[in-house]
Amino acid sequence: MSPSRLEAFSDGVLAVVITILVLELHVEPGTGLAAQLAEQWPVLLAYLVSFAVVGVIWIQHHALFRLVASVDRVVLVWNLILLLAVSLLPFAAKGVGAFLDGDPSDARLAIALYGISMEAMAIAFTVILWHVLRAGLGKEPTSRADARRSVLRFGAGTLVYPVVIAIGFWSPVAAMVGFGLVVCLYLAERTPAPN
Amino acid sequence: MSPSRLEAFSDGVLAVVITILVLELHVEPGTGLAAQLAEQWPVLLAYLVSFAVVGVIWIQHHALFRLVASVDRVVLVWNLILLLAVSLLPFAAKGVGAFLDGDPSDARLAIALYGISMEAMAIAFTVILWHVLRAGLGKEPTSRADARRSVLRFGAGTLVYPVVIAIGFWSPVAAMVGFGLVVCLYLAERTPAPN
Amino acid sequence: MSPSRLEAFSDGVLAVVITILVLELHVEPGTGLAAQLAEQWPVLLAYLVSFAVVGVIWIQHHALFRLVASVDRVVLVWNLILLLAVSLLPFAAKGVGAFLDGDPSDARLAIALYGISMEAMAIAFTVILWHVLRAGLGKEPTSRADARRSVLRFGAGTLVYPVVIAIGFWSPVAAMVGFGLVVCLYLAERTPAPN
Amino acid sequence: MSPSRLEAFSDGVLAVVITILVLELHVEPGTGLAAQLAEQWPVLLAYLVSFAVVGVIWIQHHALFRLVASVDRVVLVWNLILLLAVSLLPFAAKGVGAFLDGDPSDARLAIALYGISMEAMAIAFTVILWHVLRAGLGKEPTSRADARRSVLRFGAGTLVYPVVIAIGFWSPVAAMVGFGLVVCLYLAERTPAPN
Repeated sequence: MSPSRLEAFSDGVLAVVITILVLELHVEPGTGLAAQLAEQWPVLLAYLVSFAVVGVIWIQHHALFRLVASVDRVVLVWNLILLLAVSLLPFAAKGVGAFLDGDPSDARLAIALYGISMEAMAIAFTVILWHVLRAGLGKEPTSRADARRSVLRFGAGTLVYPVVIAIGFWSPVAAMVGFGLVVCLYLAERTPAPN
Repeated sequence: MSPSRLEAFSDGVLAVVITILVLELHVEPGTGLAAQLAEQWPVLLAYLVSFAVVGVIWIQHHALFRLVASVDRVVLVWNLILLLAVSLLPFAAKGVGAFLDGDPSDARLAIALYGISMEAMAIAFTVILWHVLRAGLGKEPTSRADARRSVLRFGAGTLVYPVVIAIGFWSPVAAMVGFGLVVCLYLAERTPAPN
Repeated sequence: MSPSRLEAFSDGVLAVVITILVLELHVEPGTGLAAQLAEQWPVLLAYLVSFAVVGVIWIQHHALFRLVASVDRVVLVWNLILLLAVSLLPFAAKGVGAFLDGDPSDARLAIALYGISMEAMAIAFTVILWHVLRAGLGKEPTSRADARRSVLRFGAGTLVYPVVIAIGFWSPVAAMVGFGLVVCLYLAERTPAPN
Repeated sequence: MSPSRLEAFSDGVLAVVITILVLELHVEPGTGLAAQLAEQWPVLLAYLVSFAVVGVIWIQHHALFRLVASVDRVVLVWNLILLLAVSLLPFAAKGVGAFLDGDPSDARLAIALYGISMEAMAIAFTVILWHVLRAGLGKEPTSRADARRSVLRFGAGTLVYPVVIAIGFWSPVAAMVGFGLVVCLYLAERTPAPN
C-alpha cells in the first residue's frame, strides 16, 4: 500500500474523531443555559484538550509519513493500533467529563484511562518510526546514529504520560490540563517554524 | 505541510460537521408528527442557518488556500482554531434550538454563544490571511497596499457578528435570521460570478 | 473552484450521511432481541431505502460532474442545496421509521417529508445539469437539441416523486417501497453497462 | 467510474464506520466508573472485534482494487452491498454488546446477526473479485486457472463465518472471539510481508 492511501484513510479517521467529540457536549431545555454550561466545565475541558490532542496527532502523522517511501504489514498494523487509540479518545473524554469533578477515585481512574490512550498513541508512533528506520522504508537512507537519535527523541514522549497520570493521583484536574500542555508543547516544537 | 493536505483535512472536518448537524433533529413515536415539527421550529432554523454557515466556510476556505503556496506553524495553529470554532457549531446550534423560544435571558445567551463561534471563525480567517500576506506564503507577491486592502476587506466581517449579537438582546430570532443573512451575503459576494 | 474539489467535499458529505443512517437503528437489553427487531421493521425499511438513495446519488453525482469543466456560483449554491436535501435524509428516515406503522395521517406526513427530500434532490440535479449546459460549463460543447434532451430526460425524475407521495396517501408502506424501486431503476439505467 | 473514485468513497465510509463504533461505549455519572467498565465487557469486546474487522476490510479493499483497471455497474452495485454490510456493523455490534451476557437465545441471535454481516462482506468481496476476473476488468490479463484459484482462495472465507456462527450456538463469547481471530488471520496472511 502506498503511504498516501494510508495517510488519506488516517486523515479521514482523525477528521471524524475531532468532529464527533462535540457530540459529548449537551444542553437541553429546562434549567437555565448558564447553569448547564457552568456545571459542564469538566466536559468542556475534556473537549478542548481532546481537540488539541487529535489536531497535534494529525500534524505529527503527516510529519512522520512524509518521510516514508513504502508501507509494510508492520506499519499497517501499528497504524491501525494508533487509530484505535485515537478513536477511543471520545470515550476517554466522556469518562473525564463525567467523573472529573466526582468521587476522587473515579476521577483518578478516568484520568488513568485517558492517559493510557495517550500513551498508546505515543508508543504506536515510536514503533512506526523505529520500524521505518530499521527496515529502510524511509525516503532516504539514515545513518544508524541519526536513526537512534530520532527514535529516542520521539520515544521520550512515552515517558511523559505516565508522569501526568501520576500527577492525576494528586490532582485529576491538573493532570487533564497537563495533557493539554504536553500536546501544545509538541505543537510548538515539532511543526515547521514560521518563515 | 502542503496546503492541499491541510485543505483535505479541513474538508473532512467540514463535511462531517455539516452532516452531523442533522443529529440534532428529533422525532419520536407518541405525539403527532406535525405537532412535533411545529414545536421544533427553533431547531430547524438553527439547522438551516448552521448548514449555510458551514457551506460558506467551506467555499471561503478554498478561496483563501487557493492563494497559499506553503503552510507554516502559524497557519497550522490558526487553521486548527478555525476548525475548533466550526466544530463547536453543532453545540452552539443545539443551544439555540433548545432556548430560542424559551426564557429571554437564556435565548440571548444562546445567541451570544452562537455569535462567538461565528466571530472566532471570522477572526481566524482574518489572522490566516494577514499572516499569509505578511510572511509571504502566498503564490504571488502582493503589494503592501493590496495586502492591507485584502485584510481590511476580509476583517470587516469580524465587526458584523458583534452587531448581530447585540440585535439578539432585542430579538434573538432576528439575530439568528441575521446570521443566516450574513452568510448568504458572503455567498453572493465572495464566490466566483456566473459565466 | 475546480470540479474535483467540489466532488471531494460532496463525496465526504455523502459518505458521512450513508454511514450515520445506522445510528437510527437501536436495540437495548431488556425485551428479547427478536421481538425488538420485528417491531422495528419500519426503521429497517427506511434504512435500506435511504442507503440505496444515497448510494445512487453518489453514482449520479459523479456521472454529472465528470462532464463539468468548471464550477461557478450557481453550481456551488445548487450543489449545497443538493447536499442539504441529502443531509436531511437521516431525519426524514427517522420520521418514516417512527410513524410508518402508526397513525395513518402521521404516516402520510412522514412519507410526504421523505418525498420532498427526494424531490429536492431531483430538482437540484436538474438545475445543475440545466445550468452547466446553458452556461457552457461542460467539457465539450453540446448542441441545443442534445442539451434539451438531457435536461428533459433528467428532469423527468422530478415528476416521479410527487406520484410516489400521492401513492403514500393510499398506502404509506407501498410509497416507501416505491422510493426504493425508483432509485434501483436509476441504478439500472444510469450506471455504465457491464462489459 | 474510475477505481480511485470508488476507493475514495469507500475509504470515507470505512473511516466513518470505524470511528463511530466508539459511540456505542457509554459511561455516565452515578455508579462508579470501574463498575460501569466491568459491566460493559461485551460492549468493549464487540468494539475491539469490529474495529479490527473494519481495519482489515479497508486493507483488503485496497488490495483488491489495486488490481482493477475499470469499474462497471456490477462492481458498483456489489461494492455498495459491501459497504451496506460494513455500515450495519455498528448496529450488529450494538446487538452483541447488549445481549452477549444476557439470555442465551438472544446472545445466539446477536452472534448470528453479526456473523451474517461478516458473511455478506465475504460474499460481496468474492463476487467483486470473480466479476473483475471474468469480465476482464483487471489491470493485466489473468489465466483461467489463476483466476479460478484466486476466487476459490478468496471465497473460502465465506465458508468460515457459518462455522463461527455455529460455534455461537454453543458459546456466543467464543464465537465473538472467533470473529476477531479470523480477521487477525486475514491481516497476517493477506497484507504485504515486512521487508
